[in-house]
Amino acid sequence: MSFETYFPIWDQLQPRQQRLLLDSLTCRTVKKGTILRGGSTDCAGLVLIRSGQLRALVYSEEGREITIYRLFDGDLCLFCAPCVIRSIQFDVTIQAEKDTEFWTIPSEIYHGLMAQSTAVSNYTNELMASRFTEVMCRMEQFMWKSMDKRVAAFLLQEASIEETLELRITHEIIANHLGSHREVITRTLRDFQAAGMVKLSRGLVTILDREKLEALLK
Amino acid sequence: MSFETYFPIWDQLQPRQQRLLLDSLTCRTVKKGTILRGGSTDCAGLVLIRSGQLRALVYSEEGREITIYRLFDGDLCLFCAPCVIRSIQFDVTIQAEKDTEFWTIPSEIYHGLMAQSTAVSNYTNELMASRFTEVMCRMEQFMWKSMDKRVAAFLLQEASIEETLELRITHEIIANHLGSHREVITRTLRDFQAAGMVKLSRGLVTILDREKLEALLK
Repeated sequence: MSFETYFPIWDQLQPRQQRLLLDSLTCRTVKKGTILRGGSTDCAGLVLIRSGQLRALVYSEEGREITIYRLFDGDLCLFCAPCVIRSIQFDVTIQAEKDTEFWTIPSEIYHGLMAQSTAVSNYTNELMASRFTEVMCRMEQFMWKSMDKRVAAFLLQEASIEETLELRITHEIIANHLGSHREVITRTLRDFQAAGMVKLSRGLVTILDREKLEALLK
Repeated sequence: MSFETYFPIWDQLQPRQQRLLLDSLTCRTVKKGTILRGGSTDCAGLVLIRSGQLRALVYSEEGREITIYRLFDGDLCLFCAPCVIRSIQFDVTIQAEKDTEFWTIPSEIYHGLMAQSTAVSNYTNELMASRFTEVMCRMEQFMWKSMDKRVAAFLLQEASIEETLELRITHEIIANHLGSHREVITRTLRDFQAAGMVKLSRGLVTILDREKLEALLK
């Protein structure tokens, strides 16, 4: 599949704009764990994922981290190029969660298209609103939900993304997704194990009772 | 001052668009405490504040609340009309914090302008990015900062908005801004009082030592 089929508003661009976009693209593959964007001055370009998985995270001053949203095949990473919208004044780090292949659209090209085309600027609006919605959802979970509910939700989300109940994930990584400490996650998972919901072994969390985990969320 | 001087991109609209906008406006005044927007289906229109103050808040299932940002004279309230952007899929309540006079732009008129004008759609992008930035800042405070730092920051912000060190505010209202409980706020304020930073009396928090409160934030 080509860029044209992945870029959602391709058909709404003029031939001249399509050419400009195609001519400016670069395609890259990065390994799992690579930081695609960190630091506030970095603004190489917008990333459109061909295959793989990215996560957007923020750090505390003490180095704790929390995932604020995730991106999958076909998603466009607006915050990989925050400079295209002047009022984005916060730092987000983008990390590859899997080996990821993507196209990069240079920031100045995209910014130019936004100024010419209501299709591009309104698409960008929808994109930002989607991320905003995810962040609000994450924020509400963090503020109002107890840790057992948040861990249960995370395990169920992982199972759905990976399409397996055997999750290859450490307690440390779960803590980094949820803005918590490893010890807190370990304690919660041991409670889940005692209740027969999961089985724990080195680097592996196996979901034994999905319904019981889902019931926790209610 | 008229709508034309308040609407930031007035000069970038065509005469026809300016007329359409002016003809569709309504002007209203609401009392302090009024809910301008609540519930998910409400989408009357975008609000441009002529004078006054609004706050955007979210509720927990148990009815706790937290302020996610505030709007002042000349600010446009995009989330008063979330339906103009389809991907806004979360509920925000908008409440007047002071008696507020404002214009309302009907949602369908604004939506129509976004489809015609890159000036309007890119302005909307900047607007949403500003709110996003405020929410991220609030989220980071909530996640990583201790309650004494958050209360100190709130008192200093209030003093700056109201231009006085004598804040007419209850512990309950501070709790509602910060997503906390009254008892927690009272305990924190009493610690501040013991340290000589504030003086507490009924419905009043007086800042005695601004520098000491500011030092807490570092």
